[in-house]
Amino acid sequence: MLSSPFVQRVKLALSFKGLSYEYVEENLQNKSHVLLSSNPVHKKVPVLIHNGKCICESMIIVQYLDEVFAGAGPSLLPADPYERAMARFWAAYIDDKLLSSWMTAFRGKNDEEKEEGRKLSAAMAENLEEALRNKPFFGGDNVGFVDIALGGFAAWVHAVEKIYGIKKFDAAKTPLLAAWVERFGALDAAKAVLPDVDVLVEVGKRRQAESDAAAAAAAQGN
Amino acid sequence: MLSSPFVQRVKLALSFKGLSYEYVEENLQNKSHVLLSSNPVHKKVPVLIHNGKCICESMIIVQYLDEVFAGAGPSLLPADPYERAMARFWAAYIDDKLLSSWMTAFRGKNDEEKEEGRKLSAAMAENLEEALRNKPFFGGDNVGFVDIALGGFAAWVHAVEKIYGIKKFDAAKTPLLAAWVERFGALDAAKAVLPDVDVLVEVGKRRQAESDAAAAAAAQGN
Repeated sequence: MLSSPFVQRVKLALSFKGLSYEYVEENLQNKSHVLLSSNPVHKKVPVLIHNGKCICESMIIVQYLDEVFAGAGPSLLPADPYERAMARFWAAYIDDKLLSSWMTAFRGKNDEEKEEGRKLSAAMAENLEEALRNKPFFGGDNVGFVDIALGGFAAWVHAVEKIYGIKKFDAAKTPLLAAWVERFGALDAAKAVLPDVDVLVEVGKRRQAESDAAAAAAAQGN
Repeated sequence: MLSSPFVQRVKLALSFKGLSYEYVEENLQNKSHVLLSSNPVHKKVPVLIHNGKCICESMIIVQYLDEVFAGAGPSLLPADPYERAMARFWAAYIDDKLLSSWMTAFRGKNDEEKEEGRKLSAAMAENLEEALRNKPFFGGDNVGFVDIALGGFAAWVHAVEKIYGIKKFDAAKTPLLAAWVERFGALDAAKAVLPDVDVLVEVGKRRQAESDAAAAAAAQGN
């Protein structure tokens, strides 16, 4: 699942920390025994297998990597407890709030719900913008925990713009986020692992077509 | 908001770590300037104010306390990175999965949805049961991060049983969880801060009546 933003987070963390690994692609239509046994609760990617132990959930994996490989590459979480708490706060905000508003904006039941999702995601982006005030990255001068959390969506931001003509981060309303997407995506460690935008465009178009077909079938009562 | 399970988590963490604090009650119908300015994003309790800095979101506060007061009382998160990842995994599971199934079971739109929520929450409790295998607490011999996450609901488990006659943790299906609720609630540090069950019963009955009235009004098209 190269297209998964959650898989991309783990790849980004590995890349920024300069760690080598073996990547195993998973077919979610026909999940492997390895996936089902290594993540029996959620049965989802990504899963990190390290020293024979399985770690699940993208941001939990990122924290694990940061703790186990504390000496490798830059620390993703800051040393100061308050700054750590703030990093966890914004990473959770991305998952709990921003992401769900994006889903509503693109997968809402009708145009009204989608419009509501777009408004909500714009308001949420404005909140998140505050966390970038006066610094190039959420982590400060360097990429940190929140950059990885949002970075998983960096390639998708461009793909969505190509498919729908919609900028997830409006340069007029959230200029810092709009600039961040470009700045983050230009980093060598990000370029090394972020998927090709055109591939995501194809994935996105296919999903939209499937979603439209399902909605049409539901409307016909099939 | 003494009745909030999220507030109770923070009080539990403070109690188990033996930390003293000033508790300020908040009226959520008329939120104070302090709350609105200290948690401008979510505008929710709990908020921890420490050294003039505001930390929000219950489990982020618990981690903050564990890091800042590493020398005070027992550590809530284990030292081993894999064990830490597992503790974070189950704490997130309680918030993302178990809690939302409970909400559906009690606040579902109709009886069908409520029944679905009850089945789901039973299945999720069975998953969580595995994390208690062969140990008295999620943290092992002592209370840890996951015990605090679930412990915030310990008094509510009893209140719900009194109101609805429903055991959230069925002794037949999830005996370890059923025993854990009793074991956890009997600890001095928990008893010191968990709210009185009868008070929660009154809160729960009032909310149910409000919810029923709102549903009846909606059904009449008001």
